[in-house]
Amino acid sequence: MASKTVKQLEAMFHPRSVAIIGASNKEGKIGHIVIKNMQNSNFSGKFYPINPKSEEILGYKAYKSIGDVPDEIDLAVICIPSKFCVAVVEECGKKKVKSVVIITAGFKEVGGEGRIREIKIQELGIKYKMRILGPNCLGLITNGNFSFASLTPKKGNIAMLSQSGAMMTGLLDWAVNNDIGFSAFISLGNKVDADEVDFIEYLANDDNTKVIAAYIESVEDGMKFFKVVSAATKKKPVILLKSGRSAAGAKAASSHTGALAGSDIGFELAFKKAGVIRADTISDLFNYALTFLVAQIPKGDKFAIVTNAGGPGIVTTDAMDKEKLGFAQFSEETINLLKEKLPAESNFRNPVDIIGDAPPSRYEDAIEILCQTPNSEVAGMIILLTPQSQTKPLLVAKKIATLQKKYPEKTMIGAFIGGVSVQESMKVLINSGVPTYAFPEDSVKVLKGLTYYKELLEKPLITEKLVKNFKVDKDKVKKIIDDAKKDHRAVLLSYETSQIFESYGIKAPKSNLVQTARDAAEIAEKMGFPLVAKIVSPQIIHKWDIGGVILNIKTPDEARNAFISIMTNAERLGPRDARLVGVELQEMIIKEDKLKSTELIIGMSRDPNWGPMLMIGSGGIYANYVKDVAFDLAYHFDREDARKLLNQTKISKILEGVRGEPVSDIEGVLDILEKLSQLVNDFSDIVELDINPCLVFTKKEGYSAVDIKITIKM
Amino acid sequence: MASKTVKQLEAMFHPRSVAIIGASNKEGKIGHIVIKNMQNSNFSGKFYPINPKSEEILGYKAYKSIGDVPDEIDLAVICIPSKFCVAVVEECGKKKVKSVVIITAGFKEVGGEGRIREIKIQELGIKYKMRILGPNCLGLITNGNFSFASLTPKKGNIAMLSQSGAMMTGLLDWAVNNDIGFSAFISLGNKVDADEVDFIEYLANDDNTKVIAAYIESVEDGMKFFKVVSAATKKKPVILLKSGRSAAGAKAASSHTGALAGSDIGFELAFKKAGVIRADTISDLFNYALTFLVAQIPKGDKFAIVTNAGGPGIVTTDAMDKEKLGFAQFSEETINLLKEKLPAESNFRNPVDIIGDAPPSRYEDAIEILCQTPNSEVAGMIILLTPQSQTKPLLVAKKIATLQKKYPEKTMIGAFIGGVSVQESMKVLINSGVPTYAFPEDSVKVLKGLTYYKELLEKPLITEKLVKNFKVDKDKVKKIIDDAKKDHRAVLLSYETSQIFESYGIKAPKSNLVQTARDAAEIAEKMGFPLVAKIVSPQIIHKWDIGGVILNIKTPDEARNAFISIMTNAERLGPRDARLVGVELQEMIIKEDKLKSTELIIGMSRDPNWGPMLMIGSGGIYANYVKDVAFDLAYHFDREDARKLLNQTKISKILEGVRGEPVSDIEGVLDILEKLSQLVNDFSDIVELDINPCLVFTKKEGYSAVDIKITIKM
Repeated sequence: MASKTVKQLEAMFHPRSVAIIGASNKEGKIGHIVIKNMQNSNFSGKFYPINPKSEEILGYKAYKSIGDVPDEIDLAVICIPSKFCVAVVEECGKKKVKSVVIITAGFKEVGGEGRIREIKIQELGIKYKMRILGPNCLGLITNGNFSFASLTPKKGNIAMLSQSGAMMTGLLDWAVNNDIGFSAFISLGNKVDADEVDFIEYLANDDNTKVIAAYIESVEDGMKFFKVVSAATKKKPVILLKSGRSAAGAKAASSHTGALAGSDIGFELAFKKAGVIRADTISDLFNYALTFLVAQIPKGDKFAIVTNAGGPGIVTTDAMDKEKLGFAQFSEETINLLKEKLPAESNFRNPVDIIGDAPPSRYEDAIEILCQTPNSEVAGMIILLTPQSQTKPLLVAKKIATLQKKYPEKTMIGAFIGGVSVQESMKVLINSGVPTYAFPEDSVKVLKGLTYYKELLEKPLITEKLVKNFKVDKDKVKKIIDDAKKDHRAVLLSYETSQIFESYGIKAPKSNLVQTARDAAEIAEKMGFPLVAKIVSPQIIHKWDIGGVILNIKTPDEARNAFISIMTNAERLGPRDARLVGVELQEMIIKEDKLKSTELIIGMSRDPNWGPMLMIGSGGIYANYVKDVAFDLAYHFDREDARKLLNQTKISKILEGVRGEPVSDIEGVLDILEKLSQLVNDFSDIVELDINPCLVFTKKEGYSAVDIKITIKM
Repeated sequence: MASKTVKQLEAMFHPRSVAIIGASNKEGKIGHIVIKNMQNSNFSGKFYPINPKSEEILGYKAYKSIGDVPDEIDLAVICIPSKFCVAVVEECGKKKVKSVVIITAGFKEVGGEGRIREIKIQELGIKYKMRILGPNCLGLITNGNFSFASLTPKKGNIAMLSQSGAMMTGLLDWAVNNDIGFSAFISLGNKVDADEVDFIEYLANDDNTKVIAAYIESVEDGMKFFKVVSAATKKKPVILLKSGRSAAGAKAASSHTGALAGSDIGFELAFKKAGVIRADTISDLFNYALTFLVAQIPKGDKFAIVTNAGGPGIVTTDAMDKEKLGFAQFSEETINLLKEKLPAESNFRNPVDIIGDAPPSRYEDAIEILCQTPNSEVAGMIILLTPQSQTKPLLVAKKIATLQKKYPEKTMIGAFIGGVSVQESMKVLINSGVPTYAFPEDSVKVLKGLTYYKELLEKPLITEKLVKNFKVDKDKVKKIIDDAKKDHRAVLLSYETSQIFESYGIKAPKSNLVQTARDAAEIAEKMGFPLVAKIVSPQIIHKWDIGGVILNIKTPDEARNAFISIMTNAERLGPRDARLVGVELQEMIIKEDKLKSTELIIGMSRDPNWGPMLMIGSGGIYANYVKDVAFDLAYHFDREDARKLLNQTKISKILEGVRGEPVSDIEGVLDILEKLSQLVNDFSDIVELDINPCLVFTKKEGYSAVDIKITIKM
């Protein structure tokens, strides 16, 4: 698909000429509904129905085949049975049609013949450099409604993508009911060619689109996603609802779409890295889209509440706390100004309670005082209203609207609790850039979304981050991995892992393989004491059980004897087919010699979508039960990421030194993470890696990756 | 308030005669609005406006004072300035008015004079045995609208209580807009007399009320709450939204109501114990209320999804997983029946996808097959619909309604995603006992609420649980506490804590206080070896620093010498004013002698509302950082509670024996919890208690509460 460009999608967004292949005069047929929709949506371009059996369809001249059309075609919409699709797509290619939408189902999702047809269509798309949407989709709504969805939403500035056609119909229905406008509404279908990332790339540069929202079930290409979406999110908010979070949901998703669903933790981390705003629910998807469309991005991170009701003020405070939103502390000056203007029974601290009998002017006074504070004191506010007997919701809304215009630096979100009495005022507010909801919890949640986006905009673009490049011995690692592969060993031997770590500058107990008693004594002397000796044999898993380990070797002689005794034991007690590679001499770390010793677990696994995923946490024999671990993707992973990752664990507090204990070698731990990231990015053959324990000592004493396990791809 | 009964509240719910004190002809006045509301709500009883200056008010004859009314009065509504309220309440008392609602504000919430007035009114209520609602409230809506809220909701079967008047106006507004009916709507105000618990007790026996819902900010009497509410929840669902969850919210709540807010964890546990369904948000409060009003309580705990759309099916599966709802696994028979009836492209497993073109009959087929399964296979289902071109939502709704009637054993919840196209069908469903929401996440959440209630109904009433009563030596404990009080020591000495534990049968290292060198030798011999000797002095906190601890004493002679050396050190190096009580000889536990030793922390603190709260978790020096702890209230705490509590911790897995390790003395740990519960229930003077570490060994080896700290009330 390298030869296709996102710019070519233009033909789907602004087609000047559209052909409907499978156009029909029969009501209820998709080829009929699509034409009706196109008509009703006031599509102003040229239009050519294609049907071999009709002369005229719905008042338009019909053509027998697309080849007969005496015009260039920007967009061909295909809604004929799947078995005819391959031939028709080829015809489109020959006709130099710029883009194709295949509504027809019966491809990858049914397997067998369908899967083969889909591959053929993909090849035709590449051959003719045509962009293709679908198959198995509802179509799309851009400068006309080229779909068989029964509703056409009004024009607006939200672009919505959906991997589920049915979800799209539901969303459309809801949107029309709530009078929400769209720049585009696209049903992605099987994504044979154009996928969510292509559309996000296109929409990021589309002036009509201010917010991109999507429902997706899978991502086609994680690396493309990172590159494109992290750049797009710097231009405009990208909001994604990704289903299949749970194991059961992922199973349902994969049986539904035939797509391989990755683990949700991978998506969670990837979305964070790429700056995606993740919607947890369908209603979040809408709320975020609407909020980002109209609201001000905050210029600070402390927020106030202004309310005419104590109870809802408390509920809102709770919700802000739950979402970890900054709670503004007012300066003495602000408090005094509030005291001057508000009745004595008011609360002059956050939440500002202007009391149940508050007229519009009192809202105005309180809000304006907060608007005049520095952004560091109050970046924005949630304005609560309950319709009490003296309350005039519409007038309050108008006052707020005026203030939002006067103080565009401040983010304002409304929470107007009620039904009939507040509906009109809510509309006024939304149209004035103040998203307003009936329940304060929703208002708080969107404010959280806005601050998340604010923080994102302040961060450097992920692909421009300076990731440290350590000087390493890549060749040596490559040789070890190649040797193991030749040897058909998926799990590396202990001395191999030690050498890999040494090549990447990660401290582990020194280790050497010895194959004769004489070598054992000589090499032991060079290494220094005490040492541990262990049998090296791919077939011997439980080394202790066969007398394959000897601890605390203190002289060359002891090393020689250990070699002999271990080899003898292994021959005598090991499995008959065990290949005895030799004995590993390993530096022995004595925890008791150290001032403080903390056990960590550090690891890596590979996510099918997002590549290597790093893990760190509390180690030791109970690591699986303690479950104090944190994850991050190794994609553009720098020291700051490493620090944030470590700080997510509880064990990091202990490394910092509690109860008067000394500080541990935290910088050393961060080194491990960065170097490990480089290692697993360099070698995609490493599919899994675990260090447990990694002993961390005090700052001066460093750390030691005591027990390392590396699994490679066979 | 012992002499007042909840039955007396009858006068507020079904008054036959009402007096409005402060009735007014002036529009906008509360005394005017209340009368208008009463008229508009078609109150059919007798009515007497009271106003010293008017002859007639809104067409009714007015009386100068309540004493002048020539009739008995069931309910007096007071809306005159607060300074006149005390006198008027006294008049009501003399007139033998049965119940009083004080709408007027300016009492406890303003402090000072207001607080005194409120106390006087409370005393009058007791003196005249009158039930009083308020002051500082909106009033109430029962068989008439006796409030100054501007709307009257329709009659229905939900009773709603609100501690916030403003919240009540918002809720009313929303309810009217959504056409929800109420049996009662009560603004609680300052709760000078009748509080949420009184009303819950009344409503539990009110036939018009099927669901009790409330917004509260505090609870007046925790023990009364337990008793009443746990019985009420067995009769009908009680749904509470409790604000002030966060520290900031609790602060706001207490400044708002003047009520002391307890910790949220206490409320969470208490609500669970009493069987309350806790709403997290305002919208939950409504959703639960409506659902419990119409839906079937499930007869099992496994649920299916039926959907005409894959995407929403996945979203719903995710949401079910998040809420830990049981996901039905169909039997082969069910799968075969589905295969017979549904098209080949359907998904015959859960979630059942009946495909986008599903007509109403296909919904009917799939749902009926699931209805015919045993309740253990499918107890209920979430029925999803997205309005696609062939979908007929209203007909589908009617089919579902018929099936719900035919199969009342099955719980059905709808999720009809969309706006205009599905609104009418949603109403049909709700009226047929199938609560239906626009977003599947809401449907899942209410289903979770229903299963929570189902489990509650299966549990015994908490006050009828058999709580074990261990044979203990209460007198001894009482004496130790009394002595410490006399001594002005809030923190008990180590040997005292050991003796308290011994008196309650909790194993701790044996410990004795010795006051002479001779005693030291003699008692040591009796105790056995090894021992630890420690200085006993309330003023010496850091015993080690002054040479006040000697470990590993192995003979009587060593004990004697230890005594002398410790006393000398303490005199020489301790604070000048230190009172040296003597030396504690304590059995020394050597962890290394044990097969397996696990460190727990076990503790108790007292909640201002809910009494003693127990805690258990991972112990040791890092306990504060590991934060693996679980809490429960000691109110009617039995062995099953103890087991559940322990099982909430991660350390419980380690006690069970992982990695081939032996099982620990879990039953011993449960003993500690039960005995501790008895101890802290017996002695309310114990305000805090901590055991860290409590060493737990293998089953045979038992446990030892090594380090105990007990703080008593001074």
